[in-house]
Amino acid sequence: MWRNCIRLARGLGQSAVLRLDPKVPCCGGVRGLNPGAPCSPLWNSLAWLSQSKRSKDYALPNSSWSQDMMDLYSRFLEMCKDGTWKRIPSYSDTADHVPESLKLANEKERKGTRFFPRNLDTEGVGFEYAMFLNPSEKRMVCLFQPGPYLEGHRGFAHGGSTATIIDSTVGGCAIFVAGRVMTANLSINYRNPIPLGSVVLVDSKVDQIEGRKVFLSCHVRSIDGQTLHAEATALFIQLNSTKSLQQQVSSQ
Amino acid sequence: MWRNCIRLARGLGQSAVLRLDPKVPCCGGVRGLNPGAPCSPLWNSLAWLSQSKRSKDYALPNSSWSQDMMDLYSRFLEMCKDGTWKRIPSYSDTADHVPESLKLANEKERKGTRFFPRNLDTEGVGFEYAMFLNPSEKRMVCLFQPGPYLEGHRGFAHGGSTATIIDSTVGGCAIFVAGRVMTANLSINYRNPIPLGSVVLVDSKVDQIEGRKVFLSCHVRSIDGQTLHAEATALFIQLNSTKSLQQQVSSQ
Repeated sequence: MWRNCIRLARGLGQSAVLRLDPKVPCCGGVRGLNPGAPCSPLWNSLAWLSQSKRSKDYALPNSSWSQDMMDLYSRFLEMCKDGTWKRIPSYSDTADHVPESLKLANEKERKGTRFFPRNLDTEGVGFEYAMFLNPSEKRMVCLFQPGPYLEGHRGFAHGGSTATIIDSTVGGCAIFVAGRVMTANLSINYRNPIPLGSVVLVDSKVDQIEGRKVFLSCHVRSIDGQTLHAEATALFIQLNSTKSLQQQVSSQ
Repeated sequence: MWRNCIRLARGLGQSAVLRLDPKVPCCGGVRGLNPGAPCSPLWNSLAWLSQSKRSKDYALPNSSWSQDMMDLYSRFLEMCKDGTWKRIPSYSDTADHVPESLKLANEKERKGTRFFPRNLDTEGVGFEYAMFLNPSEKRMVCLFQPGPYLEGHRGFAHGGSTATIIDSTVGGCAIFVAGRVMTANLSINYRNPIPLGSVVLVDSKVDQIEGRKVFLSCHVRSIDGQTLHAEATALFIQLNSTKSLQQQVSSQ
């Protein structure tokens, strides 16, 4: 099936309309996605949001967070009270982001690996971020405070670190509507560099769903909204939720 | 000037032809780039390749490198003997990548920051890579072995880590022809996920130079050449080499 996913992405522009092979199983239960799918609606029921009790949640305030970061976090937490927004936890083990009931064999045990944006133990030096999901708007925002270990140009975040936080945010948004997904395309226009230690808002939303393809867009702005740091488009491909990526690659 | 750079990138497609304001100072000395520039030819004279004697060079073999990585490294080192290729050192402090004679005020002292792809101290867990430059072909290759702390999907490199190594490789290539540069656009098609611990070859080259714009392309392949993991295009904007990015942002 992985080959199918690859084919879907290959050579297709952002606005291309795709004809899906009806024989290929596909996740479903979400408007715009194919029916008859192995992907559990748990992915978008939000039941998985507080599933990992044994692991540290890195998306909670710590002493490295600036006042700007704290204020923005508090504002979104306030908007969670009526259920409009949901706080998304974040872990250092990739598998902890997968609902327990949907874990595959290779996700059930620790492998000594680390989820890339959470691979530094010292608070404040790397990716400090917290995400909030607005299910009805299919929108995910990420409050991001890049630390001094993410440097590109002196004093500014590396383009790769900006790409990483964008990929993670749009990816989280795509997971909500489509379950297991894989980045197929990421296109970023860098407008203004992000100063290390500042706080920016990464704001992403699902623009369109065509079969197994999820199109998203994203803007990265300063918290006063005056500076556009980056804008991006992304295409994610829905995967078969019952097979590991390794199996899907192997079956090519 | 930063505003000029931003304007250059804004709204222009990859093949757009740019009319530069002749009053804006620009780096030069390289075919295709504007003359009368403040950028020193040192950037492309390769004199800076071994300039930092005081810092650890992270682009040298260590015990975490696999046999595949060592073999590929040896092959490129062999091709350096006749001067066709040049090995590029790599440091944990961003400023160590800048020639001593071109360092700006904020690059002359340690800031406690870390160059993003070199921010992990334990060998083998993060970005293990070495770059080689072919000056006559305006081509930069990067041998990349992603470690277990770069995980996205279980067992595979995070899309952001792939974006990071691509940005760094095409960026290094752009620096060679244009001196100080800034990523303006990065567009990546992800074809096949990169297994953690495998070795891939990131191969980038300058396709076109239009005034202050440098267009590049990049392919990420398995070392046997059989698997295309990703392909990308990038646009970099040449900066004023005599001012820090902070100054160029502030003068907007």
